Amino acid sequence: MTEKELASRIDHTLLKPEASGEEIERVIAEARRLGFASVCVQPVHAARVRAGLAGSGVRTCCVIGFPHGANRPTVKAIEATAACKDGCDEIDVVGFLPALVARDVYAVKAELMEVVRGARAANPRIVVKVIVESAVIVAGNRGAEEAAIADACRAVRESGADFIKTSTGYHPAGGASVEVVGWMKKYADGLLVKASGGIRDLATARAMLDAGADRLGLSAGVAILSELAGGSASTGAVGY
Amino acid sequence: MTEKELASRIDHTLLKPEASGEEIERVIAEARRLGFASVCVQPVHAARVRAGLAGSGVRTCCVIGFPHGANRPTVKAIEATAACKDGCDEIDVVGFLPALVARDVYAVKAELMEVVRGARAANPRIVVKVIVESAVIVAGNRGAEEAAIADACRAVRESGADFIKTSTGYHPAGGASVEVVGWMKKYADGLLVKASGGIRDLATARAMLDAGADRLGLSAGVAILSELAGGSASTGAVGY
Repeated sequence: MTEKELASRIDHTLLKPEASGEEIERVIAEARRLGFASVCVQPVHAARVRAGLAGSGVRTCCVIGFPHGANRPTVKAIEATAACKDGCDEIDVVGFLPALVARDVYAVKAELMEVVRGARAANPRIVVKVIVESAVIVAGNRGAEEAAIADACRAVRESGADFIKTSTGYHPAGGASVEVVGWMKKYADGLLVKASGGIRDLATARAMLDAGADRLGLSAGVAILSELAGGSASTGAVGY
Repeated sequence: MTEKELASRIDHTLLKPEASGEEIERVIAEARRLGFASVCVQPVHAARVRAGLAGSGVRTCCVIGFPHGANRPTVKAIEATAACKDGCDEIDVVGFLPALVARDVYAVKAELMEVVRGARAANPRIVVKVIVESAVIVAGNRGAEEAAIADACRAVRESGADFIKTSTGYHPAGGASVEVVGWMKKYADGLLVKASGGIRDLATARAMLDAGADRLGLSAGVAILSELAGGSASTGAVGY
């Protein structure tokens, strides 16, 4: 895989809540230089990222209901609509975790449909990814982990969303696992799969892609591309 | 201090995003039995808590923009208005951390005013607490920690909010410290102070109250009251 191919699979992500304007500008510049799939930020930064990426071909992505997903569905839908109006090409929406853990497909789907419809009304081409916090689903369904992930895939797919995404990266239960990504691929049936949470080096990134991930969400993209180019993973700079 | 006095200073808090309906019902029942100041939950549970607490004298509280505070101000204001319409008596709003760290009083205040005004239009008596994630402010202002907390107090006070609150309990930088609570009290000038994040035993709760906290936010309220009553802190039940 070339650096360019790998970069095109990565959402270059900066979600820490205290991120400064300078840090946002840095990730925009990195994405323009390296050709990541998107820059993924908190909602309040979406318009700035969109302006900074103009003409680059890099897409603008922001999170919705992040990271807990325990907002009212209407509030998530309004936040998604606002993201579309700010020029986002993609949104990563946190689903309602109690319903995901309980494998309540109807409740998960009903909420997501409100968000997807609101977003599509504002931008018919918006790409919607749904974060299901898979480590929490797994922890709550011991002995039936695969079936619970299959249910999550079904609910997300039937909501009309485009991607199922493993993790917020902020839950103590953990991030993406190769096993879960494999299950998501197995039950995707048309959905795309985004692996995120704890992907900090090239070996882990490759493992997730090999397991079936279509997209990776991570903040270590510059270091990982450097690792692929043969540089040090810790420099944070890429030599091309 | 009696158990009743201590309970009246505690927001009985359940914010983990995967909390089930059963767990929400449990904290409602505990609050009715023990007389906590409020039950504090995620927005999606507010209406259920309000119904469950009817006639008890225990107030309903939910969080807004939680835990990152990186939503658009308008989305926070809409979420706050929805909380009022669901019957909340109190809301705990996460401020915009980059502006708090940068000690940009104007920006912090301008955002909060939008939220406070929106909420007050829906419920003129709503109590508004503003979470400033004090550990992040402190980490970003080494050598000027006290002045940075003073600026946060000023911004929150001038926004028209009622309380300044130390922490979400979800940031890796940490929760409340006795030192920060003391500074908040020193610069409160009419604001009330809520200490939250990492308060898990009676000794810590007492230390926060002694430092000037008017209210405590914690999930270990049942165990802490049990400790005060001379029981085991780990039983999770209180014998009166």
